[in-house]
Formats: sequence, C-alpha cells, structure tokens
Amino acid sequence: MLLIPDLIKKKRNGGVLSDDDIKTFIQAVTDKTIQDCQTGAMLMAIWQKGMVTKETEALTREMMLSGEVMSWPKEWAGRVVDKHSTGGVGDKVSLVLTPALAACGCKVPMISGQGLAHTGGTLDKLESIPGFNIHQSPKQIVEILGSVGCCIVGQTEKLVPADRVLYALRDATSTVDSIPLITGSIISKKGAESLAALVLDVKFGRAALYKDPEGAKALAQSMVDAGNNLGMQTCAVLSSMDGTVGQCVGNSLEVIESLETLKGNGPEDLMELVTTLGGLLLQMTGLVSDLPTGRQKLSEAVSTGAALSKFQAMMEAQGVATETARALCSTPTDYYSILRKAAHQTELETPEEGVVLDVAGLVLAEVLHKLGAGRSKVGESINHSVGAELLVSLGQRVKKGTSWLRLHHEDPALTPHQIHALQGALTLGTGPQTQQKHTLVKELLLPKQHA
Amino acid sequence: MLLIPDLIKKKRNGGVLSDDDIKTFIQAVTDKTIQDCQTGAMLMAIWQKGMVTKETEALTREMMLSGEVMSWPKEWAGRVVDKHSTGGVGDKVSLVLTPALAACGCKVPMISGQGLAHTGGTLDKLESIPGFNIHQSPKQIVEILGSVGCCIVGQTEKLVPADRVLYALRDATSTVDSIPLITGSIISKKGAESLAALVLDVKFGRAALYKDPEGAKALAQSMVDAGNNLGMQTCAVLSSMDGTVGQCVGNSLEVIESLETLKGNGPEDLMELVTTLGGLLLQMTGLVSDLPTGRQKLSEAVSTGAALSKFQAMMEAQGVATETARALCSTPTDYYSILRKAAHQTELETPEEGVVLDVAGLVLAEVLHKLGAGRSKVGESINHSVGAELLVSLGQRVKKGTSWLRLHHEDPALTPHQIHALQGALTLGTGPQTQQKHTLVKELLLPKQHA
Repeated sequence: MLLIPDLIKKKRNGGVLSDDDIKTFIQAVTDKTIQDCQTGAMLMAIWQKGMVTKETEALTREMMLSGEVMSWPKEWAGRVVDKHSTGGVGDKVSLVLTPALAACGCKVPMISGQGLAHTGGTLDKLESIPGFNIHQSPKQIVEILGSVGCCIVGQTEKLVPADRVLYALRDATSTVDSIPLITGSIISKKGAESLAALVLDVKFGRAALYKDPEGAKALAQSMVDAGNNLGMQTCAVLSSMDGTVGQCVGNSLEVIESLETLKGNGPEDLMELVTTLGGLLLQMTGLVSDLPTGRQKLSEAVSTGAALSKFQAMMEAQGVATETARALCSTPTDYYSILRKAAHQTELETPEEGVVLDVAGLVLAEVLHKLGAGRSKVGESINHSVGAELLVSLGQRVKKGTSWLRLHHEDPALTPHQIHALQGALTLGTGPQTQQKHTLVKELLLPKQHA
Repeated sequence: MLLIPDLIKKKRNGGVLSDDDIKTFIQAVTDKTIQDCQTGAMLMAIWQKGMVTKETEALTREMMLSGEVMSWPKEWAGRVVDKHSTGGVGDKVSLVLTPALAACGCKVPMISGQGLAHTGGTLDKLESIPGFNIHQSPKQIVEILGSVGCCIVGQTEKLVPADRVLYALRDATSTVDSIPLITGSIISKKGAESLAALVLDVKFGRAALYKDPEGAKALAQSMVDAGNNLGMQTCAVLSSMDGTVGQCVGNSLEVIESLETLKGNGPEDLMELVTTLGGLLLQMTGLVSDLPTGRQKLSEAVSTGAALSKFQAMMEAQGVATETARALCSTPTDYYSILRKAAHQTELETPEEGVVLDVAGLVLAEVLHKLGAGRSKVGESINHSVGAELLVSLGQRVKKGTSWLRLHHEDPALTPHQIHALQGALTLGTGPQTQQKHTLVKELLLPKQHA
C-alpha cells in the first residue's frame, strides 16, 4: 500500500491511480488520518492532471462507500429515481418534477443542497414555506416515500462523509471546477441514494459553471459513466443557461412560480425541462417505452392536478401545517398571506422601444445575491423574500417605459450602481418580434447499453 | 488585495504572482491565518506551474523577512560569508571550509541543518564530538565570530519562520523537488544571515537530488539570481555526486576524515571542493583578486595548520572541553579515545580481480541509513558511530579478496541482503589503472555583474 505522499507524487506526475490508491486516499479523508495540507495538494494535483474514466469511477465508488448507503423496500425495485442539476438561475425544476414523478408511480428520495454563490438551492426555496422541514432521518424518508412517493431533504450526517470534507476543502483551495472532483461529489451522493435511474441536467452558457457546451458535455459524460458504473441507469440533458429558468428568481418567488406551474400555468421552458428530464427517467425505469410517451405522462401528471396533490402531501409530510399546504395549493391563492413578502417592490422600465433580445441571468442573480437572496459561505442566513420577476418575454416587442423587471427587496433602497447593473442585463434590439425561450434543451446523453 | 483562494487560482492557472500576492501568501503562512489545505494546494500549484525569476525572488525575500534578520558589527562589512551544499554522500566540506575561511580573515556564521533521508547533516557530524553544542543564540554567534571567526550552529526559532512551516508541509505533500520552493527555502535562510557573499555547491549525479547537470544548473541559476537579488554576492559550483566525497561516510568517521584533512592528509576531491568553494568566496569578498589566488590561500590555511587551529578554537567556543579539542587536533591522535567506536567493524572483499570503476554512493548511504546512521523523520535520533570507510580508490587495480569497504556497525549483524546490496555498489572492470576522483567540479556559475 502506497503512503499518502507517494499517492500525491503519483498523481502530481500525471500517473493513473489504482483502485487501491483511491481507496487509501478516500479512507484517509474519511478517517481524518490524512493531513489537510496533503488533501489540498492531492486536490490540486487532480485539478492539474485530471483523471481517466476508471479513476473517476473508483473515486465516486469509494466516496459513496465512505458512509451509509440507503436501502429501500424490495417492492420499490426499479422505481427509485432522482434528478440532479448543475445549477442555474431560477432553476425550480425539482419543485415541479419531484411530485410529478411521484404522481407517475416513481419513488423520489431527492437529497438536495443549499445554494452557494449565484445559484439558488432547492432547500432554500422550500424553507421559504413556513414549517417545511428539510431534515428527515433515513427512516422518515422511507416513511414519506411510502405514503407520498417523494420528499426533498438535506444531506444526512452519515451519507458520503468523504464528500463533506472534500467539498469544504475544494472551495478553500480553488479546486471546485474539476470534472473528476465534481463527478465524485455529485454521483457518490446519488449513488448513496441507491437509485434505479438518475437523470442529470448539465447547464452551459453565460449563467452556468461551463460557458461552452463542450465543457458541459465532458462533465455530463463523466457523470453518466460514473453513474452507470455504480449500477444506476444514468443519462444527461445538456441545457442552455444564459437567462433564467421561467420568469422568477428568488426563493419564495420561485415557490410561487412552481405552484403556478403545478396548477397548469407554468412557463414553457420550465415545462420543457420537467417533461424532458422526467420523461427520460420514466423511460429508464421501463414505466414507459419511449421518451415522447414519458413526456406525455409528465404533462398529464401536471395538467390533471396529480402532481399538485403530491406536492401538497409532501409539504404536509415534511412538517407544513395542513391548512397552509391546502391554502398554497388552492386556486386562486393569496400567496402572500402565507409567504413573507419583501418590504419593497421596485419596477425597472425599458429605456427605449425595441424587441427583448436577452436578459442576462447571471447579472440578475449577482444583484439579488447582494440584496440578500443568496449566501457566500456555507451556513450564512439568507432572505427568502428577496427576488425578481421578469415581466417581459424574450422576443417580445416593448415600448419605451415598459416595466420589465419587478424587484422584491428590503431596506436599504437599491443603489444607483445596482440599478445600472440590472438595466445592463436587458438587451433590446430592432429585429422582428419572435418566440424564444429562456432555456433550451440542446442535447441528450443517453445511457450506455448494459450487457 | 487578493484572497488566498484567488491567489491559489492565479497560480493554478499558470499566472504570475505579483510581489503583493506573494507577500500576502507568506504573511498568511507566518501568521498561520492560511488553512493547511490551502498551503498544500498552493505548494502543488507552484510545483506544477513553476515560478518566473521575479516570483522566486519575491518568494525568497518575503520568506527571509518573515522573521529576524541577523546584523553584524560594521567592521565586518564585506567579510561575512557562507556556503551551502544541496547535499551529498560523505560531504564534509563545511567542517574543513568553515575554519579555513576564518583563517583567511572571513567571518563564517554557518547555520546548518540536520540530515534527512540519505544525505548526512553537518550538525549530526559535529554532534558526534562530545560536548559540541549546536544551539547558540544570535548574541553568542556574534561573540564566537568575534573571537574565533566561525561557528557552525542550528537554525534559531526566530529565523525564517515561514520556511519552518513550508519545509514540513513540502515533505508531506510531495512538493520538495521544486526549483522555486528549494530556492526560497535555502536562500531565505542565507539571506537572514546578512551575508556579503555566498557560494553554493549544487550536486548532480546518481547520489544527488538532480540526476542530470541540466536540472542542477537550473536550480543553481535560480538560487544565484535570488541570492544576488537580496544583495548578497552569490555564485555556484556544479559538482558531480555519484560516489562519495572523500573516503568516509558516517558522522564520527567524517569528523575524523575532516580532522585528517585539516592536518594536511585530506583526499584530493575534498580539497578540490574546499579550495574551489572557498576561493570563490575570497574572490567575491575582494580579499583576493582571482580564483587561483583564492584557492592558494585556502590551501595554505590548511597546510600551515591555521585552519586546524580555528577548528580547535571553534570546538572550544561551542562547548567542547579544552582537553578534548586539543586531543582531537594533535598528531598522532587516538580518535577513538574520544569519539565512540561502533561495536563491530566488518570488511567486505572484492569478489574478483579488476580495476575499481565505480562505487555507488547512494547504495552505501542507503544501507548506512538502515543501520542507524541517518534519520527518516525530523527529530529521530541517530547513531553517530555507524559508517563506512572506502579502502580503495577509483581507478585502482585490486586483487580478488582485497578488502574494499570497512563497515562500522552495531548489533544485529549485517543481513545477507545488506551485504549483497553493498557488494552491488562496487563496479570492477578490466581497463587499465587510472587516476580518478570521486567528485568533480564541473562548472562554475559566477555572479552577475552588478551595476
């Protein structure tokens, strides 16, 4: 067995670590027998030299095995599924997809994360609902999946402890953007959920980690390989992330938009993501025979209200008062009788006449982050009410002085600098009015055929 | 000011760190405000991407300034000198050169290190002399330099604290063999001695850190540049390190060989290194006008016994009893009445007739290390009496059964494996008898002309 400095040297020199080497490293991380300086050096060596597929697969497997792996009742075999997104602006897909999949007969033990930097976290959105408890034990998760079919919860202490350590150090050591390290982190956690099928939404574009589709595709392929290697059927969708998913950004605003979507009033781009990602999962589980049928089933779960019922049941199962859950899911709804509204709503107006060509999602997200909607460090508290509603659509012709963005914020008022930045996010042009969507599915990475 | 993760990212991506960036990093290392994982990642990023001359110079300067810098009486201006070697087998140059330079009118505040791995440490050799105290305060160092002219001491707590931290982490993170990091470590410590002139002995060959002269030359150039940048006249010698320096390896055996050299009976290769390195220092200080004159002056310091007297005075000033120091420096000397002799002396015989073509220094050193002559970890104790005497010279014709190596060791006896390894260190050939030296000076890197 090689010692830690030998392992670092091997990777430093561009060598390929064996399964045993990676096991040694991950065990030392889990047992905390490795020095932090050594973990930092190893992470940087991996960042610099990368990993071949076999190494990434071993890293993912050993990280998964560093803690508990969930187990499910036998009768759920083949139906336990989940989705992971690499993070976008206004990405509320999980809130709609999870109950819709449950309505289609799947079991969805979605273990999600808090938001960091400009991407929002699914858990933060849910925590804007009074009473919603993201902390559920493995036993409670099984119970909720049994009764409702889905839950959305935070990571438990015992799941993938190696990732807990590495994730914190990667941030400190500037080694976040490494395909093998991202793959290990994400897929090990999904592997520990013992899924039958996993679909990945890998974003590319100006508001995504990868600006170009090629980088996103390389990451997607690495994660698809690692997931299938663990025995989960895994496929990926590459989707563009330049603007926003849907029209709302910010935690409670996104809950409202998700509920409206579950009530059949959702934006087209959000529904495209939901039906594509969900359709692929239904196809992988064999519940449908092809993607179009899967998409159709997801659409119906929404249009019939079945998905909304599952969301209502999930809220109740996760601690929301029956009254509150019912009120949120009724029509019409006075959302702000339940969700806190920010002190101020400020509308920005278009500076001239034109056609809306672009709204830069990253700019919106960064200003909202500064206004309190996001966190810069793990553990920071955030303001769930801060957010923005986009009042125009891409391709829409607008007059000068049209309200195009409604900001929800607290005191102090927006600074001239922030207003200037937000106005800069809007691009108007002279072209004809067209129909465009904010996010687009570009490519599917389907799972490999298994022998 | 950039934050630590930004600095790591900049170097990780191959960027050039500014003076301020490097100051921020070294201050954080010194104050211990940086996380160990970050230091490990930064060391690995530097290992991977290297540093341009300007960065290495800034690193060296900031490391030097992380602690106290020595100051000397004005009347010594221009005469305070030192030498550093990158480490060899049987390298006892310091023990001869230091008093010889003092005899030539220099002040030599040699701050040396303990040995690690296969290279012996000057301090370990001196500590085989009963009473020799390597721990001297800055005030005591000034006193000894005033009365004797030279001392050989260990690093004080307050000198270059940043190196103390980085040195320990480099070993753990497999980032030892990095030219900027080696340069920073060595030259910052020499800079803190406030030297007028510094000569470097950079080894290459099978028993050196760098196997090829090109690698050694790159390191030498980096150290020469960084030294001159700190205002020390700095030059370097590239010398081969395949066999041993002189005939003896092991702490007390090397003290004996050094004393014999100071008494005029030294091996030619050792004297060549002493006169070359010392001659360059005399030339740089202006005490002589050219290297041949400098060499001559060093030779005379040895042949007249002036260097031996300085060594005797230095031993006394550093705690050795007058009686002991006098006995070691008299002729003839019963060295083993003072220095402890190992329990056993075992001679190895040549397996056949031939001409001695090679003795692999690294092999000798590694076996001696296992027998207790060296340490694998900082702080380990060692056996000063363990060592080996080479009984033949390179190029010498020997009969079968000639004793070629005398090992000094303790119980248990040598293992057959060790004997086999040692016999493998000897290469006999059929060529004619020739005169060869173990170590050779290959090239000089003279200081740049200063404006």
